[in-house]
Amino acid sequence: MYEGVVQDLIDELGRLPGIGPKSAQRIAFYLLDADPVDVRRFADVLIEVKEKVRFCATCGNVAESETCRICADPRRDQSVLCVVEESKDVVAIERTREFRGRYHVLGGAISPIDGRGPDDLRIRELMQRLADGAITEIILATDPNLEGEATATYLTRLLKPLGLRVTRLASGLPVGGDLEYADEVTLGRAFEGRRTVD
Amino acid sequence: MYEGVVQDLIDELGRLPGIGPKSAQRIAFYLLDADPVDVRRFADVLIEVKEKVRFCATCGNVAESETCRICADPRRDQSVLCVVEESKDVVAIERTREFRGRYHVLGGAISPIDGRGPDDLRIRELMQRLADGAITEIILATDPNLEGEATATYLTRLLKPLGLRVTRLASGLPVGGDLEYADEVTLGRAFEGRRTVD
Repeated sequence: MYEGVVQDLIDELGRLPGIGPKSAQRIAFYLLDADPVDVRRFADVLIEVKEKVRFCATCGNVAESETCRICADPRRDQSVLCVVEESKDVVAIERTREFRGRYHVLGGAISPIDGRGPDDLRIRELMQRLADGAITEIILATDPNLEGEATATYLTRLLKPLGLRVTRLASGLPVGGDLEYADEVTLGRAFEGRRTVD
Repeated sequence: MYEGVVQDLIDELGRLPGIGPKSAQRIAFYLLDADPVDVRRFADVLIEVKEKVRFCATCGNVAESETCRICADPRRDQSVLCVVEESKDVVAIERTREFRGRYHVLGGAISPIDGRGPDDLRIRELMQRLADGAITEIILATDPNLEGEATATYLTRLLKPLGLRVTRLASGLPVGGDLEYADEVTLGRAFEGRRTVD
């Protein structure tokens, strides 16, 4: 509908996840009105990110060099490994400041519906990291959904025989939430995982 | 939270309208995973759009040359002018195939709350287009909201004394809608504008 390059821009924006045709149009017109310097900077960042960003050779997290900041940090606990699905999850956990160990990013979860099996995840790399025996605990922090649970179960079966301590993040009522509005699965988990009050 | 350029990308994405921090992160990771060729093409379109796209010297619509496609088209009716707020509105009206005249893009609507008055809109340019008397009807197609109505009222007062036919798009029930869910203003307008059935 638009002339040449304006339509190209709308098409490019519309390919991004979560951006529908209306949003793509809105963003395109915002960019048409924006300062050329700002748009140029945005374009440069896009190019730079593809040139610079790689994935940490050790944990699979996003990194700007061979090894990511967390794996390169000698103050992090070398004996505990937290297994997550995505780099985003690393950031979410880092924000809690609760965890001082290191990570392993699987690159997704087992999902037959998307044709993603164990071989498509960085599980071989995980097993290699466990070879020297330095790691003694694995925390399975995959998502508390069907795919995440399936992945956690798969990994538990694989890791338990190695004599490691394998743990899973607690499921239960979200803090600040309302018991009345919790779904039955979450509430069921909260009962299962109930703790004695000191 | 992220390393250098990944965070830069999230920040740039987060500045776009309608993109919150979560969406920005999601899009950034999508781009990290995407084919470098695709991301490069996106960056190139961003740069190209700022270099190439200008605004039509006649109507103010987006254009790739001095004059936009519609103003340059000799088959369009030169006697009718449809006044809209934005280029997006031109596209919406073109999609209906109902209108064969030309457009005038104001670049917004009168909005005291945003500090936008008549002088900030392309009203002077509109008056200049009317000077030669070729245009005999003006269709006011500003948005059916407070700002759009105020702009239409302002323009009506300005244009009526010139002896032009000034019309406003009909307000009423949207086609395919449900009377029960129409707001009272729309329903009121639908009554006001009711027509005799043949």
